[in-house]
Amino acid sequence: MSHHRIIFPDLPDQPPPRLLVTGDEAHHAIRVKRLAVGDPVDFRDGRGGVGVARVADTFKHRSDWTIALDVETFSRAPRPSHLLHVRAATPKGDRLEAMADALAQLGVASFAPLISARTIAEPRPARLDRLDRIALEAVKQSGCPWKLEIAPPISFADALASDYAVILADASGTPSRAPAGPRAMLLVGPEGGWTPDELAAARAANVRVHRFASHTLRTETAAVVAAGVLLAAAL
Amino acid sequence: MSHHRIIFPDLPDQPPPRLLVTGDEAHHAIRVKRLAVGDPVDFRDGRGGVGVARVADTFKHRSDWTIALDVETFSRAPRPSHLLHVRAATPKGDRLEAMADALAQLGVASFAPLISARTIAEPRPARLDRLDRIALEAVKQSGCPWKLEIAPPISFADALASDYAVILADASGTPSRAPAGPRAMLLVGPEGGWTPDELAAARAANVRVHRFASHTLRTETAAVVAAGVLLAAAL
Repeated sequence: MSHHRIIFPDLPDQPPPRLLVTGDEAHHAIRVKRLAVGDPVDFRDGRGGVGVARVADTFKHRSDWTIALDVETFSRAPRPSHLLHVRAATPKGDRLEAMADALAQLGVASFAPLISARTIAEPRPARLDRLDRIALEAVKQSGCPWKLEIAPPISFADALASDYAVILADASGTPSRAPAGPRAMLLVGPEGGWTPDELAAARAANVRVHRFASHTLRTETAAVVAAGVLLAAAL
Repeated sequence: MSHHRIIFPDLPDQPPPRLLVTGDEAHHAIRVKRLAVGDPVDFRDGRGGVGVARVADTFKHRSDWTIALDVETFSRAPRPSHLLHVRAATPKGDRLEAMADALAQLGVASFAPLISARTIAEPRPARLDRLDRIALEAVKQSGCPWKLEIAPPISFADALASDYAVILADASGTPSRAPAGPRAMLLVGPEGGWTPDELAAARAANVRVHRFASHTLRTETAAVVAAGVLLAAAL
């Protein structure tokens, strides 16, 4: 089994020789994972920073645990050569969280809610903060050195006008075989689909329109499967 | 927008000219979807049967609604040429339900819980019944004429010995480019991964070992992405 992973979201470019872990992360590492002095730990910052540290000390003040880690190795992984940015209509309920979790595991570069004509829900800032925490947890789980960035909502028109290589997921498109390219943006519509105007605007903008499955997928399934297919083509 | 869809899981090979809808399905169609006399309805049985009917009458007895449908057209879609069967370790919590839902949307032929060396949970029969209801709902949502079949748990050894073209998902494998073939079985391991013995047994059995992503995926993400990649290659 691999080492226990700990995330430091705000690590400086070069970390200090000793790192302190506090809060829930420390509590979980000691009480659930039974981390003890001398144990190795894999630590990451979600911005390419990956290192190994060793537990130097653990102490408890009232009910709060602290773990002192001695850094042994540290390096920064380069960004992957293929960056895929996903812009998807917000699915209802906690399916948004499940979608962000899966996209983060896949190594998608960023996610933003897409505001299209038939989009019903636009997530509030507090919800986006929660997605960011889910993305950090996914770094721990998947081992991906780069965290899924959570970006503010974007309109369909702005997404089309971006300077990324835009790919729109729709049943009217051709099957996708080729990788998305080094800087691509995948657009996934809401449950009600794109409007004829949106599809016409996408085709006028020379956007690649692809289908990724035989049947109608829910938004979060479509986003995860389409991102998975595009990233698998670049493996 | 497409017609309202209604599922009749136990339709005979040739349905009678009039169908009755009762229970939650009728309540939802009338009170939420505002279905009225004369409206067309898309009906399916999840075994390839797809038809169009028209609302002939609606009536209420106490609080229970009934809808009478006159069948206008009916045909049976052939099974798709590529049938993919997924056998995956059971993820914790309600992620099993989310996985079955997504696999059903994708048009996966069947799902069964896979019992591997590191599998923790084995779902009870009542849980499998619930997955079957989710698969039926997915027929409604995705328009896939064939329902994901929910099969009883299977051991790793039995899965390897099956006469399907077996594909095992593991980070040690090669990227997957080709379709899975007409009769394929995808094996997805638990969060702790396969044991060295299981990987050795798979390679000894000449099973195709493929990786579908750059990073470690949770079981349900791995199953959905791998199935999506394999089915997309056959589009």
